Amino acid sequence: MQNRCPHVLSMDELYAPTLKETPVEAELISHQLMLRAGMIRKTASGIYSYLPLGWRVIKKIEQIVREEMDAIGCQEVSLPVLQPAELWQESGRWPVYGPELMRLTDRHEREFCLGPTHEEIITALVRSELRSYKQLPLTLYQINLKFRDEMRPRFGLMRGREFIMKDAYSFGTDQAALDADYAAQEGAYRKICERMKMDYRIVDADSGEIGGSVSAEFMALAEAGESEIVYCECGFAADTEVCEQESCPQCGAPLQHARGIEIGQIFQLGTKYSEAMGATFQDEDGTDKPFVMGCYGIGVSRIAAALIEQKHDERGCIWPKSVAPAEVAVLALDGVGEVAETAATLAHKLAEADVEVVLDARPERPGVKFAEADLIGWPQQLIVGKRGLAAGIVEIKDRATGETHDAPLDEAVGYLVES
Amino acid sequence: MQNRCPHVLSMDELYAPTLKETPVEAELISHQLMLRAGMIRKTASGIYSYLPLGWRVIKKIEQIVREEMDAIGCQEVSLPVLQPAELWQESGRWPVYGPELMRLTDRHEREFCLGPTHEEIITALVRSELRSYKQLPLTLYQINLKFRDEMRPRFGLMRGREFIMKDAYSFGTDQAALDADYAAQEGAYRKICERMKMDYRIVDADSGEIGGSVSAEFMALAEAGESEIVYCECGFAADTEVCEQESCPQCGAPLQHARGIEIGQIFQLGTKYSEAMGATFQDEDGTDKPFVMGCYGIGVSRIAAALIEQKHDERGCIWPKSVAPAEVAVLALDGVGEVAETAATLAHKLAEADVEVVLDARPERPGVKFAEADLIGWPQQLIVGKRGLAAGIVEIKDRATGETHDAPLDEAVGYLVES
Repeated sequence: MQNRCPHVLSMDELYAPTLKETPVEAELISHQLMLRAGMIRKTASGIYSYLPLGWRVIKKIEQIVREEMDAIGCQEVSLPVLQPAELWQESGRWPVYGPELMRLTDRHEREFCLGPTHEEIITALVRSELRSYKQLPLTLYQINLKFRDEMRPRFGLMRGREFIMKDAYSFGTDQAALDADYAAQEGAYRKICERMKMDYRIVDADSGEIGGSVSAEFMALAEAGESEIVYCECGFAADTEVCEQESCPQCGAPLQHARGIEIGQIFQLGTKYSEAMGATFQDEDGTDKPFVMGCYGIGVSRIAAALIEQKHDERGCIWPKSVAPAEVAVLALDGVGEVAETAATLAHKLAEADVEVVLDARPERPGVKFAEADLIGWPQQLIVGKRGLAAGIVEIKDRATGETHDAPLDEAVGYLVES
Repeated sequence: MQNRCPHVLSMDELYAPTLKETPVEAELISHQLMLRAGMIRKTASGIYSYLPLGWRVIKKIEQIVREEMDAIGCQEVSLPVLQPAELWQESGRWPVYGPELMRLTDRHEREFCLGPTHEEIITALVRSELRSYKQLPLTLYQINLKFRDEMRPRFGLMRGREFIMKDAYSFGTDQAALDADYAAQEGAYRKICERMKMDYRIVDADSGEIGGSVSAEFMALAEAGESEIVYCECGFAADTEVCEQESCPQCGAPLQHARGIEIGQIFQLGTKYSEAMGATFQDEDGTDKPFVMGCYGIGVSRIAAALIEQKHDERGCIWPKSVAPAEVAVLALDGVGEVAETAATLAHKLAEADVEVVLDARPERPGVKFAEADLIGWPQQLIVGKRGLAAGIVEIKDRATGETHDAPLDEAVGYLVES
């Protein structure tokens, strides 16, 4: 079968059950569109299954996060979901953490929780083996499932009970080292947001249940955001009324108000966990000191939803190329004959040029293909029809702008590879 | 800093706390070596954290499995760890599944389990949306955490309570379709094993708690294997005393006995779950029929342990190149000066040639570096010393054979890229 190439996704094989109607239980646009585009399905309240298209988006986001963590010298690990109560008793959080902590007992009646965060686990992991100042600084991270038993989970991936996060933990000798680690994470988060074309602001934040002193949140601007944020165009964000940032032209300018979705948070933990759990290193002067720690979370599955909140129109999702489930959709307006054959050839040429491509040569009406392509939100559409082919041209449509233009048949692949 | 290149792992930054002594709690060689090489650490009984080197191995295995699943047209999804009891009541397994099933209740007293397998979830996922025979066959898979509350977990990753598996589920119209899906999975599993240089046999198996009729296990041959298996050199394996395979030279030959570690199992489920849960499609003749299903599991984290059981010596792990945490270790016998600089240059050249490389230029004695390189098990070692450099040569050591040879300085990278 011609389409049975692992490098060309074929819409007649892809499991992406789209919905024409907006599901009544979904309030948020991102939730509606991920359901309608066949990206996720609800398995239980606040618990979702990712279908192939949704999972491709998640893997793209994961890989961007991974690359930016690796680029600043962090090392990837994987920590267990099942966390023994003993470690949470050591940190003091077991009795005080609220009903959001999912607790269970094993067959021997030992208590565990499903990790909402991993400070205890990582501190216990390194405490007897990371012993010398020479090994510091060190930042370990993972991309893994997290659990939080929300009272009323809703909003799809925006606030689930089982979700995917990147969490990183830095270990340093002193406050200066922590400042450097914290700044490195902030820089990496900026790059992550930029690679995903996210419109975001950084705001001061409370440390909450995690603890520590300094903390900041990365907020994706969106009308459906749960928090009001105040910021200046120069990038400064605060609770004051005018910009207090000193070295920018907007200094003293009135601040702007918007709504934001928290997609990441970075914390200076200091010695809260290392002191409570006895995690020390031997410093250059021979004395034992507690690690000065930071922790840095970013919501991988939440980012997928936040991107849709920020980038959509009445027809569907508008994915940036870097996280789209595929970069180009080749739409064959006829499912058979020369049109379908040409479309398949173009799709294979794109795949050979390392463009992620999906081919829609189903026996459906053109209107159905256009509507689904816009709903799913492929960044570029390459439209192959009978009339155009007779004139030696195909149509290229940019999903974000809606602009279309004709391209000579033999130049279309080159154009899409470049763009 | 010269070594701060994301493409060259540096041993002075890598978090890989090696142990000189064999941990007393570890009975199996694979468990001992993964602890000693700083690849895993125990967080609780049967629950492990993966350190950077161990996690690199797991990601390699995952990617091999993913590529072979994609190559036979399977589509990757991700299903929740938290599974609602209702679905297990529908299939009838909730009351009968033993204490290995980890159960918990949420804040609203609703019952859940931590998935040991996902037949219920996947059947519920597709049952109202995969409706036409035209959409079949379809195979969905995931690579995800699984949970099984073992009575006495031990043996490290070989039998944990939280572990990583690939599980695939096929949906077809009839037995012939199931036979084809089952054969495709068997073929993919063979390729997976071959890419990892696994010495394995396929044996008939019981279906156990999963259910269904036909089932086979993929067994890695290893002295520490938990099962005795009987097989003929022709590949046939059975309970009989002589080979009953008809079309091979060894036919009628006495069977051999060995021990095996189960690394994968494939099942023909038939209609057990689709009938119990009302998951039907409309066939070509217009009638509703239950899906004819298969399920196919392979133990990702267990494979890491099984590979060590099969490939090690008294000095440590012997990883095949395809799953090693890096392909080449460049050992600088001096941590400073020309030796260290040449080693760093060679490491960067290897990285530029897309070879995964680790550089050991720590201020340690050569004996320590040799011992750790053998313990971790890098497939190739490139050894740079003062005396060799004076003569314009470096030494290349193959971990598996122990063979070494000298190479001119300017040919070493080329040799390693080729090999």
